[in-house]
Amino acid sequence: MSPRDADYAARVRASFGRQGAMGLIGAELTRIEPGLVEIELPFRRDLAQQHGFFHGGIVSMIADSAGGYAAYTLFPADSSILTVEYKMNLLAPAAGDRLCARGRVKKFGRTLTICELEVEAVSGASAKTCAVGLQT
Amino acid sequence: MSPRDADYAARVRASFGRQGAMGLIGAELTRIEPGLVEIELPFRRDLAQQHGFFHGGIVSMIADSAGGYAAYTLFPADSSILTVEYKMNLLAPAAGDRLCARGRVKKFGRTLTICELEVEAVSGASAKTCAVGLQT
Amino acid sequence: MSPRDADYAARVRASFGRQGAMGLIGAELTRIEPGLVEIELPFRRDLAQQHGFFHGGIVSMIADSAGGYAAYTLFPADSSILTVEYKMNLLAPAAGDRLCARGRVKKFGRTLTICELEVEAVSGASAKTCAVGLQT
Amino acid sequence: MSPRDADYAARVRASFGRQGAMGLIGAELTRIEPGLVEIELPFRRDLAQQHGFFHGGIVSMIADSAGGYAAYTLFPADSSILTVEYKMNLLAPAAGDRLCARGRVKKFGRTLTICELEVEAVSGASAKTCAVGLQT
Repeated sequence: MSPRDADYAARVRASFGRQGAMGLIGAELTRIEPGLVEIELPFRRDLAQQHGFFHGGIVSMIADSAGGYAAYTLFPADSSILTVEYKMNLLAPAAGDRLCARGRVKKFGRTLTICELEVEAVSGASAKTCAVGLQT
Repeated sequence: MSPRDADYAARVRASFGRQGAMGLIGAELTRIEPGLVEIELPFRRDLAQQHGFFHGGIVSMIADSAGGYAAYTLFPADSSILTVEYKMNLLAPAAGDRLCARGRVKKFGRTLTICELEVEAVSGASAKTCAVGLQT
Repeated sequence: MSPRDADYAARVRASFGRQGAMGLIGAELTRIEPGLVEIELPFRRDLAQQHGFFHGGIVSMIADSAGGYAAYTLFPADSSILTVEYKMNLLAPAAGDRLCARGRVKKFGRTLTICELEVEAVSGASAKTCAVGLQT
Repeated sequence: MSPRDADYAARVRASFGRQGAMGLIGAELTRIEPGLVEIELPFRRDLAQQHGFFHGGIVSMIADSAGGYAAYTLFPADSSILTVEYKMNLLAPAAGDRLCARGRVKKFGRTLTICELEVEAVSGASAKTCAVGLQT
C-alpha cells in the first residue's frame, strides 16, 4: 500500500501527540509504516481491572488507535478519520509487562477502510495474543 | 431479573473500586439495579482524542464496564466475570460535558450473558446517544 | 423518521422480489414502515442445521435483509444500499414454526445508517428472541 | 493444532450432510484439516440479491459454517457446537462464478473457540476477498 502523503509518519506522530487519552495512559507509537501502526503500553496499576491485569477497555483503546492510525497513514494530508465501529474478541487475560497493539489495513476504500487489530501481552521475552478485532 | 446475591450493589461497588483504570479516568457508578448499571464520566482534556472530544476508546471502556457490571449484579457472590467480546458502533462524536454509559442484560445464561450497551454524551440538559454496542 | 420517497413500500417490495435468495428460502415481507421492516420465514427441513433448527446463517440472512430494507425505506428513490458489516449474537437455538426478523433504524446518516436487528422464533402463540444484532 | 478425534473429517462430512440449508444452496466441503475448513458455493440466480451478486446472507452463511466446522475438527467425537456470535465485514460485492469460504481456528478454548472467517469471490482464475469476519 502506498501513502498519498509522503509525510505520513510525521502526521501520525503529531495527531497521536494531540490525543490526551494516549498520554494519560502512557502509550507510545513504536512502528509506523504504510497501512501498519504499532502502539505499546507499559503496565501500570492504574491501567488495571479488578484482577490486576490490563483493563479490557485499555486493550481496546490502543487497538482502536493503532487501527485508526494504520488507516491514517494512507490518507491524504488534510483528511481526518473517525472510527465507525469495531469489534474485539478478548482471547485471554491481558497479563504482562506491556501490551503491543497492531493495526493493519485490510481494505482501503474511498469512504470506508477496514483494519485488522491484534493485541499481544508481552512478559519478558514471551508474547501472547490477548485480543483480535476488526474495525471500520 | 432477580439477583442471586442480595448484596449485589455492594459487590459491584467494591469491584469497581479495585479497577485502577476506572479511577484513572474519573468514572463513577451512578446506578446499580439487577441487570442494569450506569457509569458516568465528566470530561477532562486528558480523556480526549485529537479533535477534543472524548476518545472512542474511553467511550468503549465505560460501556464495557457498565455491561460487565450489569451482568455481575445477577451473579452469585463468589463468581467472577470476563468480557468475551464486544462490538461498538460509534454513532456520533462523543462531544459533551460528560458521558453516561448504560449496560443492560439482554440474556442471562449459564456460561454466557449478553448485554446491550449505550453511551450518551450529555451537554447541560441535552443528551445524545453517541455509541451502541453488544457484549458477550 | 420520515421517508424521502413516498413510494417507499412499493420500492422495498420490488427490490425484495428481485432477491433470488429470499425466494429460495420462502421469506415474506410482513411489515414495512419508515425505518422498520419485518420479514417472516416458515420452517422447512431444508432451512435447518444438523440439529433440525433453523440454520444460523438463515437467521442472519433474514435479519440482514430486514435491516437493509429498514434503511432503504428512508432513502431517496434512486439510491441503492449495501451492508457494510453486521454482527449477530445468537441467543438461543432458532427452534420454531417460523422466524420473524425485525430491522429498525437506530441512526440514519448521510453515508452510513445503523440498524438494530432482532429475530424471534415463533412456535404457535409463543415467541422467543433467538438473535440480536447491529448492522451498518 | 491436533484433533482429539482422529476421525474428524468423516464427522465433519456427516454433520455437513445433515444440514438441509447447505444442500439447499448447493454448498460443498472442499477442504478439511485440523482447525481449517473450506466450503465452496457455485453461483446460481436464486442465491442472488437484487443486483445479481451473491446475497450477503449467503456469504455469511457459508462463512459461519466454515468457521463452525473448523472448530468442530478439534472437538472430541461426541461434542456439539453452536455459534455464539459472529461479525462480518462485507468488503466488496460478492460477484463471481463461485464463493470460497475459509474458517480458521484462531483460539481453541474449553468453552469458547474463536475463528477467523474469510470469503473469496472467484471469477475464473482470479479471486478477490469479499468478506472477513470473527466468530465465537
